[in-house]
Amino acid sequence: MSDTYVLVHGAWHTGAEMAAVADGLRAAGHTVHCPTVAGNNPGDNRASTGLDDAIASVVRFIEGQDLTQVRLVGHSYGGMVISGVADRIAARLRRLVYINAFVPLDGESLNDMVPPHYVAMFDAIAGANSNAVTLPFEIWREAFINDADLPLARAAYDKLNPHPYRTFTDKIQLKQPLAALALGKSYVNCQQDTALPHSLPWHPRLSERLGLFRLVECPGSHEMFFSNPQRLAQAILEAGRD
Amino acid sequence: MSDTYVLVHGAWHTGAEMAAVADGLRAAGHTVHCPTVAGNNPGDNRASTGLDDAIASVVRFIEGQDLTQVRLVGHSYGGMVISGVADRIAARLRRLVYINAFVPLDGESLNDMVPPHYVAMFDAIAGANSNAVTLPFEIWREAFINDADLPLARAAYDKLNPHPYRTFTDKIQLKQPLAALALGKSYVNCQQDTALPHSLPWHPRLSERLGLFRLVECPGSHEMFFSNPQRLAQAILEAGRD
Amino acid sequence: MSDTYVLVHGAWHTGAEMAAVADGLRAAGHTVHCPTVAGNNPGDNRASTGLDDAIASVVRFIEGQDLTQVRLVGHSYGGMVISGVADRIAARLRRLVYINAFVPLDGESLNDMVPPHYVAMFDAIAGANSNAVTLPFEIWREAFINDADLPLARAAYDKLNPHPYRTFTDKIQLKQPLAALALGKSYVNCQQDTALPHSLPWHPRLSERLGLFRLVECPGSHEMFFSNPQRLAQAILEAGRD
Repeated sequence: MSDTYVLVHGAWHTGAEMAAVADGLRAAGHTVHCPTVAGNNPGDNRASTGLDDAIASVVRFIEGQDLTQVRLVGHSYGGMVISGVADRIAARLRRLVYINAFVPLDGESLNDMVPPHYVAMFDAIAGANSNAVTLPFEIWREAFINDADLPLARAAYDKLNPHPYRTFTDKIQLKQPLAALALGKSYVNCQQDTALPHSLPWHPRLSERLGLFRLVECPGSHEMFFSNPQRLAQAILEAGRD
Repeated sequence: MSDTYVLVHGAWHTGAEMAAVADGLRAAGHTVHCPTVAGNNPGDNRASTGLDDAIASVVRFIEGQDLTQVRLVGHSYGGMVISGVADRIAARLRRLVYINAFVPLDGESLNDMVPPHYVAMFDAIAGANSNAVTLPFEIWREAFINDADLPLARAAYDKLNPHPYRTFTDKIQLKQPLAALALGKSYVNCQQDTALPHSLPWHPRLSERLGLFRLVECPGSHEMFFSNPQRLAQAILEAGRD
Repeated sequence: MSDTYVLVHGAWHTGAEMAAVADGLRAAGHTVHCPTVAGNNPGDNRASTGLDDAIASVVRFIEGQDLTQVRLVGHSYGGMVISGVADRIAARLRRLVYINAFVPLDGESLNDMVPPHYVAMFDAIAGANSNAVTLPFEIWREAFINDADLPLARAAYDKLNPHPYRTFTDKIQLKQPLAALALGKSYVNCQQDTALPHSLPWHPRLSERLGLFRLVECPGSHEMFFSNPQRLAQAILEAGRD
């Protein structure tokens, strides 16, 4: 049975970086789309793109392709996006799959779920870069892709693009709590992911906001899309299979 | 060296569902018994069976078979049962092995260790079913057997039986804390078990009530008896081997 | 590329017990030293050796061999030692690797990071043994080497030596917080390590004191140097590779 997956990338990424995982899902017989969210395309205006623009771009993609029964997968910042999409077009979706992704409450921004020292650093970087935020390599290497060797960590870093900071500071509007949506929900927790510190973790702190949800865990860092895409694809299949 | 194991099933189960794990232990040379606890046999009275009846039925089984040096293993609700059995006939036991199982304090019920929203749901179901409690399929599929595919989740669900709710609400009587019992104690934690939410977890919240204990962990859900009995048998062997 | 590793053992151990892991690192092409810390050599005075003596002995070793660009690895109590060494000769080091090891704040002793019931037990044992502390076998078997079988647990226990208790009670002096040191830092967390209870854990409680650090995890107990040295060597390689 062929399922339809839409993979929504995290901050600093585009759909292109989802390709290896998408191929893993396709090898299992599924149809996979990897749109690039508004704000992360090469020519997009980093200063003006906000969270609503990002959400609207994925809504447009799903409606434009007339997709239904979608397994909508969000990674990291992508959790903000898929939460907004689910709030707007739930009828086209079958299940939400969060991969170490933000699960917002109504009125929350991404920055509201992040340790203060990260917010201060993001503020400073965005302030000096026309409201585009980047990630210092040292943090990327140690806390985001700790399971890769140095050459892979560098090669992956070179693919990142400056991220529109308004999508981190805009408050999301949700008509109802995500737990109340009549959709399946899954949370994939990559166990060595320290992009958020384990004292303020992805799971169970954010995952349990989904109410009843299916937990799938796998060994790996925040950036298994680079460091172990086959294993991550397996986890997504277990998260999304029904 | 052949050890003697007695496996005590969880709520809604019978000894029959322990068979695959028991076979794994037998393949390692051990003797394994899988009694069905009072209240879960086909003809048992779900309305009247209480926790003392459940405990007494396993005491009778061990005494009736004249078993000694028993590795007494309890899964989930079975932790209530083996805790009571240990309090009554410790001299026949060698070691207690809890598998994501309840570890009560004197005077506690199972429901005292469970999130309030589960207790409210159990109350409502039991109130409408002559004090027998069942588990909605959606909760079973997402939170109890998250590591299985849907056909296995359904097949396993079809084997469950209505559970006597008094065994969840009765307070256990213990002559001394379990940590004070002069027996070996082990706790097997199946790592993706979300039958209890990870914010109110089996381990270390309940496991550490055992005092000095041996931790064994394995990947899997609350229902590895169905989803991965070979791996669970290996964990039990490591938990019980001395 | 050949890196230089110095492995600093935990309490009750000597450098000899690091040999199997050191061989695993050497097989990957690296140079590995396993000095025995002052206080744990056969003839050392257990009553008088303090934490400063222990730290100074490893400083002397590194300076005496004129080692530079050192990956300095500490296990358990060895975390106290490598923290002091890093504070004194950071210029000779490339990266600190803690393996379920203590990460002290300035003015803290090892005992300050340990549950009160362990401190009380240590006090009693050292009080009766000329200020040398030993570990009861039952605790070793259940909480330190829970992943081994009984013969291995016994054989490993027989290699332990009485430990100078002043190294647990002396407060460390640090010129600056470890997080402020301009060195790479990694933390290897052996996931079934219950030498510290999981309610008062190694990670993230102590690891996050390092500030930005690289997390590497592997399945195993506190004593993987005995129970699974190959797997631990792999984790150290991932922790130390750049």
